[in-house]
Amino acid sequence: MEPAPDRVDQVWRDLALAGEAAGARSIADLFRLEPDRLSQFTLEGAGIYLDLSKHPWSRSDHGLAIDLARAAGVEAARTRLFAGEAINTSEHRPALHMALRAPGDQAFHALGEPVSGEIQATRRRMGDLATAIRSGAHGGGNGQAYEAIVHIGIGGSDLGPRLVWEALRPLSPQIDLRFVANIDPSELSMALDGLNPARTLVVIVSKSFTTQETLINATAARSWLRAALGAGGDQQMIAVSAAPDLARAFGVPEDQVFGFRDWVGGRYSLWSAVGLSCAIALGPRVFEALLEGAAAMDAHFQSASLEANLPVQLALAHVFNRNALNRPVRAVVPYAQRLRLFPAFLQQLEMESNGKRVDKLGRPVRHLTAASVFGDAGTNGQHAFFQALHQGTDVVPVDILAVAEPMAAGEAAHTGLLANAVAQAEALMVGRSADRVRADLEQQGLSAAEVEALVPQRTFPGNRPSSFLILDCLSPERLGALIALYEHKVFVEGVLWGINSFDQWGVELGKRLASVVLPELEGAAAGDHDPSTADLIRRLKR
Amino acid sequence: MEPAPDRVDQVWRDLALAGEAAGARSIADLFRLEPDRLSQFTLEGAGIYLDLSKHPWSRSDHGLAIDLARAAGVEAARTRLFAGEAINTSEHRPALHMALRAPGDQAFHALGEPVSGEIQATRRRMGDLATAIRSGAHGGGNGQAYEAIVHIGIGGSDLGPRLVWEALRPLSPQIDLRFVANIDPSELSMALDGLNPARTLVVIVSKSFTTQETLINATAARSWLRAALGAGGDQQMIAVSAAPDLARAFGVPEDQVFGFRDWVGGRYSLWSAVGLSCAIALGPRVFEALLEGAAAMDAHFQSASLEANLPVQLALAHVFNRNALNRPVRAVVPYAQRLRLFPAFLQQLEMESNGKRVDKLGRPVRHLTAASVFGDAGTNGQHAFFQALHQGTDVVPVDILAVAEPMAAGEAAHTGLLANAVAQAEALMVGRSADRVRADLEQQGLSAAEVEALVPQRTFPGNRPSSFLILDCLSPERLGALIALYEHKVFVEGVLWGINSFDQWGVELGKRLASVVLPELEGAAAGDHDPSTADLIRRLKR
Repeated sequence: MEPAPDRVDQVWRDLALAGEAAGARSIADLFRLEPDRLSQFTLEGAGIYLDLSKHPWSRSDHGLAIDLARAAGVEAARTRLFAGEAINTSEHRPALHMALRAPGDQAFHALGEPVSGEIQATRRRMGDLATAIRSGAHGGGNGQAYEAIVHIGIGGSDLGPRLVWEALRPLSPQIDLRFVANIDPSELSMALDGLNPARTLVVIVSKSFTTQETLINATAARSWLRAALGAGGDQQMIAVSAAPDLARAFGVPEDQVFGFRDWVGGRYSLWSAVGLSCAIALGPRVFEALLEGAAAMDAHFQSASLEANLPVQLALAHVFNRNALNRPVRAVVPYAQRLRLFPAFLQQLEMESNGKRVDKLGRPVRHLTAASVFGDAGTNGQHAFFQALHQGTDVVPVDILAVAEPMAAGEAAHTGLLANAVAQAEALMVGRSADRVRADLEQQGLSAAEVEALVPQRTFPGNRPSSFLILDCLSPERLGALIALYEHKVFVEGVLWGINSFDQWGVELGKRLASVVLPELEGAAAGDHDPSTADLIRRLKR
Repeated sequence: MEPAPDRVDQVWRDLALAGEAAGARSIADLFRLEPDRLSQFTLEGAGIYLDLSKHPWSRSDHGLAIDLARAAGVEAARTRLFAGEAINTSEHRPALHMALRAPGDQAFHALGEPVSGEIQATRRRMGDLATAIRSGAHGGGNGQAYEAIVHIGIGGSDLGPRLVWEALRPLSPQIDLRFVANIDPSELSMALDGLNPARTLVVIVSKSFTTQETLINATAARSWLRAALGAGGDQQMIAVSAAPDLARAFGVPEDQVFGFRDWVGGRYSLWSAVGLSCAIALGPRVFEALLEGAAAMDAHFQSASLEANLPVQLALAHVFNRNALNRPVRAVVPYAQRLRLFPAFLQQLEMESNGKRVDKLGRPVRHLTAASVFGDAGTNGQHAFFQALHQGTDVVPVDILAVAEPMAAGEAAHTGLLANAVAQAEALMVGRSADRVRADLEQQGLSAAEVEALVPQRTFPGNRPSSFLILDCLSPERLGALIALYEHKVFVEGVLWGINSFDQWGVELGKRLASVVLPELEGAAAGDHDPSTADLIRRLKR
């Protein structure tokens, strides 16, 4: 169904009213009032279990939210997404990252042009190269097997592969993988430290092959290779880019340039050749399993009803918090050290995709868009920002992720980890009343004055919402499904808000002004700036 | 001057009115209206330069904010802080981390009891041990010099030392330092991977020596040492705790137990023996220089007028955004890869210290307290969440940090880094108007229809505030001063909000409920939970 503007406006208004009631309501009470609540608010797909019951929406509020998804045309938009239509309107491009991870027998089209053959060919080339490198058949300068990869890229060319590597890396990897993103030369020096150039592969990833940070780091890495290996050092470079000519001109051997199409957005690109470093360092089978897991979530997203659809339901929970309850921030806490980069990955995925203020047609949006996202691995976050989650003045909804199977030897520790994940969700919701705190303190034998002084400090208001996700294990398949879940969640939110989730014009102005400031820091005459900026340039002049 | 409640209320009301006007005002216009603006809004101390001019406060708003600081009794509170009075009221303790880093000739008192002698003795012991270890005089099982330290601690026993190590570590350290915080056994296995037990020192840091995560990891690390070295493995453990008896009972040799007092809050403890791992791995001189830099900021905070006081002024800028302008989130972007952990450190420092909902007397606070904090190193963040900072629906103030001197070889890259830092602050403020975007696009030869479609997408509203900090270099002294600046900023905010910044009761409930959930996950009968929690326990049962 295509969106019907009047109907959409009406549902948004109803949802705002529902939010007013929900904001004044006790989540814990809802479980008493709605005995069947759990069946409506829990769902499962592609190996991921999702519990959205610990939010203050009632069953009928939830029905309204689903009405919104239907009225806003989520189903039709989903069809257009998978059909490869130009849903990235400002750039006239489809967003077809699903094609990159689809099974070989599925045919995707980008603006009508078949793409799956080319994708399968690239996947085979990636697999062949990874196999050759891992077997030592394809080695470094002295014919020795590679022992390290330096992956150079930033933003979408960095955060995804970094997350995948940290989540799945073996303890003592055959090939170590290090990442360099920042233009600050510190990161490259730390990454190169201790590496043997003859046994190091440099993988340069830039969609445009003009990204300032990546070119500066790639140039320095090329010098490092050449200093040790002469011109032959260039043989140890691989490039991944949608501009292969520029990569070849940089000196990357032709058969080591991997392409991807302009309809792969940077923050959706880890499934393409951008993931090559991971395919090499983790092995091609692990990388293929990651793609399979994402494809399983694609299939779920595409086929499940709105009611049973994980990306849709997660989006609705987040939008209910963001818009109906006016909550501008969300925390993400994976109870898995290996997923500690997931919050940073989501910062990009959500805030770059949906941090927009005009809709697809250029009109000011009528609803607040992407919330700010922050987080850290649990239990670490409990010893950092959870104080504010429990007793701060603002309500910050939390996404809590748990992994059922241990991710390292240490069964008791893992059970402790899970106990904390569950207990935090419970504690956020139930809180602890002044009466119970008072009874505890009296039992400890404190004086009446001490008790009264401490009661308010130790009371927890509770009624703070969380979403709970369970992965049965942290396999490549589940990681792929988890990332795809959030990708599609972001897409659904974009549809609800009426925005284009696939462009990022907001990054342009800073780049443009940096190119003005740079020569001034290098000694050129001062340009036209406000007094503060002019003074900063004067102070930082080299 | 002690706070005068009526006067304080009046100033808060005036500030709220000022905020209404400021929210509707153009920051860029203020520079035109207030030609001397820069002199009022920039200041310098302990080697740090601070520019607060890119906020929408006028010079008279700023005067009001200073009135608030004065009326709320910031000066008197500062005096009580340094005098070692029990400003942590709910625990009847002073907060005397400044004593830990004070020069040897300064005498601090905690509740009247002299503490500086003991502190100096501990500093000498730390220095002696670090020197002995670095020289090889104090070695591992086979008399060999240590080559690695595994530092086990969580929250305040982790984030500070981790930040210091990442900021100051040499490229190829003589002694490597690895951190383990999470109860998830993955982190310990990754940290121990590749280490030689005979040459590894395990440093266990827990204020109470009962922290669940730390004890589980310490027990596993002790088994790892004993498996390789027998009972002698215990000789390779060091403990830092305010409960030395428990550390000794755990098997740590008596002369390797370091204490600190209960008036050192976890998140303020890196200056104490909690920093021992850093003192060893960075060398005692570096650690002492870190303390000296913090002491320089202490002296500045204590002696500078409110107008010229960095912690006070930074607090006022943040409070003006938080309370007068109702901005619930702040981003922190250090343009220095080595400071990439600073945002995570501040999440704890700010959200645990000031994420409170009752005042010191237990009354509900009358103003919103700690904002949510997130961030990442620049330029990386520009390729992630800056889209939302520039074009999102919410205004998120940013703290931008720049370091004048390069932190690694690569002068051109460093200048590029600085250009980006300055340009982002400028871009956030000046934006780019529809007219200028239109002119640009027309010049590129786009059709009228294309131009009109793109103009709104590529327009930047601007008028987004930032604070700008410059460190001349990333020396240990400057890092110490930077951390101390934010510590005191948090203290000043706490005074303005009337809360106790030094307790953290909000972390207790989750721990308590985890101890209920744990046995149920291990097979004990299900207890009394809401249906969602009961179902999660059933699903995650081992």
